[in-house]
Amino acid sequence: MQNLKLASLRAHPKTIIEVGPIKFGRGFVIIAGPCSVESEEQTLSIAQAVKNGGAHMLRGGAFKPRTSPYNFQGLGLKGLKILEKAREKTGLPVVSEVLDTRDVSWMCEYVDLLQIGARNMQNFSLLKEVGKIRTPVLLKRGMYSTIAEWLNCAEYILNEGNPNVILCERGIRTFETYTRNTLDLSAVSALKELTHLPVIVDPAHGTGKVSLILPMSLAAVAAGADGLIVEVHNHPELALSDKDQALTPDQFSELMAKVTDLRAFMENKN
Amino acid sequence: MQNLKLASLRAHPKTIIEVGPIKFGRGFVIIAGPCSVESEEQTLSIAQAVKNGGAHMLRGGAFKPRTSPYNFQGLGLKGLKILEKAREKTGLPVVSEVLDTRDVSWMCEYVDLLQIGARNMQNFSLLKEVGKIRTPVLLKRGMYSTIAEWLNCAEYILNEGNPNVILCERGIRTFETYTRNTLDLSAVSALKELTHLPVIVDPAHGTGKVSLILPMSLAAVAAGADGLIVEVHNHPELALSDKDQALTPDQFSELMAKVTDLRAFMENKN
Amino acid sequence: MQNLKLASLRAHPKTIIEVGPIKFGRGFVIIAGPCSVESEEQTLSIAQAVKNGGAHMLRGGAFKPRTSPYNFQGLGLKGLKILEKAREKTGLPVVSEVLDTRDVSWMCEYVDLLQIGARNMQNFSLLKEVGKIRTPVLLKRGMYSTIAEWLNCAEYILNEGNPNVILCERGIRTFETYTRNTLDLSAVSALKELTHLPVIVDPAHGTGKVSLILPMSLAAVAAGADGLIVEVHNHPELALSDKDQALTPDQFSELMAKVTDLRAFMENKN
Amino acid sequence: MQNLKLASLRAHPKTIIEVGPIKFGRGFVIIAGPCSVESEEQTLSIAQAVKNGGAHMLRGGAFKPRTSPYNFQGLGLKGLKILEKAREKTGLPVVSEVLDTRDVSWMCEYVDLLQIGARNMQNFSLLKEVGKIRTPVLLKRGMYSTIAEWLNCAEYILNEGNPNVILCERGIRTFETYTRNTLDLSAVSALKELTHLPVIVDPAHGTGKVSLILPMSLAAVAAGADGLIVEVHNHPELALSDKDQALTPDQFSELMAKVTDLRAFMENKN
Repeated sequence: MQNLKLASLRAHPKTIIEVGPIKFGRGFVIIAGPCSVESEEQTLSIAQAVKNGGAHMLRGGAFKPRTSPYNFQGLGLKGLKILEKAREKTGLPVVSEVLDTRDVSWMCEYVDLLQIGARNMQNFSLLKEVGKIRTPVLLKRGMYSTIAEWLNCAEYILNEGNPNVILCERGIRTFETYTRNTLDLSAVSALKELTHLPVIVDPAHGTGKVSLILPMSLAAVAAGADGLIVEVHNHPELALSDKDQALTPDQFSELMAKVTDLRAFMENKN
Repeated sequence: MQNLKLASLRAHPKTIIEVGPIKFGRGFVIIAGPCSVESEEQTLSIAQAVKNGGAHMLRGGAFKPRTSPYNFQGLGLKGLKILEKAREKTGLPVVSEVLDTRDVSWMCEYVDLLQIGARNMQNFSLLKEVGKIRTPVLLKRGMYSTIAEWLNCAEYILNEGNPNVILCERGIRTFETYTRNTLDLSAVSALKELTHLPVIVDPAHGTGKVSLILPMSLAAVAAGADGLIVEVHNHPELALSDKDQALTPDQFSELMAKVTDLRAFMENKN
Repeated sequence: MQNLKLASLRAHPKTIIEVGPIKFGRGFVIIAGPCSVESEEQTLSIAQAVKNGGAHMLRGGAFKPRTSPYNFQGLGLKGLKILEKAREKTGLPVVSEVLDTRDVSWMCEYVDLLQIGARNMQNFSLLKEVGKIRTPVLLKRGMYSTIAEWLNCAEYILNEGNPNVILCERGIRTFETYTRNTLDLSAVSALKELTHLPVIVDPAHGTGKVSLILPMSLAAVAAGADGLIVEVHNHPELALSDKDQALTPDQFSELMAKVTDLRAFMENKN
Repeated sequence: MQNLKLASLRAHPKTIIEVGPIKFGRGFVIIAGPCSVESEEQTLSIAQAVKNGGAHMLRGGAFKPRTSPYNFQGLGLKGLKILEKAREKTGLPVVSEVLDTRDVSWMCEYVDLLQIGARNMQNFSLLKEVGKIRTPVLLKRGMYSTIAEWLNCAEYILNEGNPNVILCERGIRTFETYTRNTLDLSAVSALKELTHLPVIVDPAHGTGKVSLILPMSLAAVAAGADGLIVEVHNHPELALSDKDQALTPDQFSELMAKVTDLRAFMENKN
């Protein structure tokens, strides 16, 4: 970790990042919503459901990085406008993924938090571009990347002048096939001793299985994470992407309750 | 998982395995002790310390599987006799690793639980041999093995007639270098939906770093594990093996307290 | 591989891609040059050396994707102008890496072949952008990517209308530490039964060790590769990047001779 | 590699290992035969076929390490007697895998070369036991093992007094799913600069696909391997194990011819 100047824990006390009324790094933040924005009706309905369930922020993909060019690629600008409407209706701040340097500046008009996805973690042009704005950035770990490489990507953003970087562990690629990826919760604890930046966990991509999302969310709380990002869909079986890892609104409400309880217990104890 | 007949959750309700007064699968079991039995003094001293700290069982290696033939290979029978003495003094049941089919039957005279290490997980001769006795077996996950392969190794033991198999997640090998292995806590939750066998976690080998043992122990509790196995040494810096991942007695006491509290909270909630 | 329409071997006979006078997919193409364009003097000198050694094309990085923002990032446009000069002097067509969608169109003025690096393999915006031009594209395999995912990235480019995609195996990330990556030569043979696109091999990044470049180059020929891309530096010990895997001009000449001989033997035999 | 005393290239010039009339480390040795000895008729028929095709040694498993206890486990002693008969009939020396320390001494009566399989690479008891005899040992690389760990396993055998160790690269486990494992041919070249022991390649387990065996065999020759071990079956589709990676006798003859030609070319050139 010798190259880190700005992301290092030695450089800075714990960073609190404000996204609207939400503070990453203080309390515990839960982001929920559909994998993809599929339609206005779907998004508004899910947004209201996660709001009712207690979510602090809304997620939704407008530009989707898909393995095949023939898979659903997202609604683009139309999707961002739907997210804007959902924010108006629910008051939830919005996070969405940016894929292209050319989209960075104008996407900030629509979203409160810009996500850099796992596949773009080492897209250094994109990192530099989001380093030039002040909108907070959610930097997901590349599925093949070491903790050191990941922190260096945060360093790229910080070095351009944007101090608002939130890290998101989302599982790494291993030989295991039962789970979609291997969620590396030790990375969360490791980051707490290496950096001052907030760290959240994505148990949905990390496991790829609905049944494992609740236990891994609880484990993430116990490991010291600052938040979670999960996928919720009103009809998971019909989702245009990630249908096997989307919670129903009821499953989300149960998760919220249990996570909140555990977090309160952990805070009292420490 | 189509090949599983005996290890499958469909085959059997939750298994409780008795090791002396300890019950794996009911309550939460914490095993602690030195990586290697180095001397009588060292072992008795650590045994007393972990007993005082609240451990339920004592661990200690007499036969050590080491990468190089020139590293300390363990005290062998002499080490087992020291463990026997430690058991007498503390009342703690003892677990130690068996490396050779020829040692299985007589080692049961000295230990209460026989460990099959990660490197021998697919040593099918050894699996069959421990399947022929009734002494419980602690089966560690191979560092390269899928959950399905691991369960098939349990199946080998069960199929020979020994129903007393406890699984132990100890981290898998990945590209990450900050940690020694990548602790796969999702495997714990996955096993809970696949098998009736108890599952414990080894956060020391899983991470290789003292600083990560406590948070990963808490995360293991939250993920639903039935216990932990940790390394404790009165002078970690002098340990003949695994010095970077051994807790001091004080660190162990802190871990015991926090783990016990969290487990109590989790039990009340579910 | 069910999603492939255009990259599949069933869609098209073997593709020949022309880059100036060079034909990828017919004969055997060797690309050589410095990792980074460091100065005019360095680049012209190496370009002349690899031309003398028998190289068919010149490589050189102007935009460098580096792990840390504090490492040398390349000379940018200045570097491209140096490459242009080197092409004029030697007659060798030039390949260089593009990192940003905004650079695609104008970089084609300077280079004959645009490289998409391993870290950007799934930068789908960049793939679509290079799909809109006709300049041939060298698509390196992501260090974490399956063959199926890689071919789907080629499909992204083909689907936008650019049929000129050359694949480059450059090693995948594994637990092995002796080599920088694990060069997957079986991928070369696998691609030959899956796709009509030419496949070349990068033994320098694949191994990270000068001593392994020659044997892996010969193995690549035997595995059926259509070419090689290697790093050559007149003073490897002073190189600003990848100093441990750069050949000297003499080592390159030896490699050219042996590779050419083996390729001639293989062609006569098949 | 600091721990190596006996396996290191600095310790010893190139080792030649004699197995009957065969010399590993001089010339190129091809071992062929069925994955499992299934019956006398099957084994004798295949033995004759590979003899006719030009093989130098016969392989055949009598004790089979299988993922599930319900898969065919091999014929045991009966299988070894069949191999003995095949050796008598064809004159080919025989290699077979040993799984248990208790079987080492008597199995030497039946086989000319004892194989330690990938799953037992770090079965240190077994390594020590085969170190006490003089029968040559074929030590396969563990699917998760680094080159350094593998050489340390050879060191275990050498350190007990048996100097006759042949290494066999058989692929490592990665995320790739198109191939069964990822054949690491750079390990062959790396071993040539690290150790004096002969190195052969198993392209069948390395790839798991019949179509890739020939190109990977040729690549292994080019990478400097001292031999190959392949699976041949008279009716691959009926094989009790590894049916997807067994060559027919005709495919084997073609492979022999091409490999022999390439090896002759390589020898003349160097």
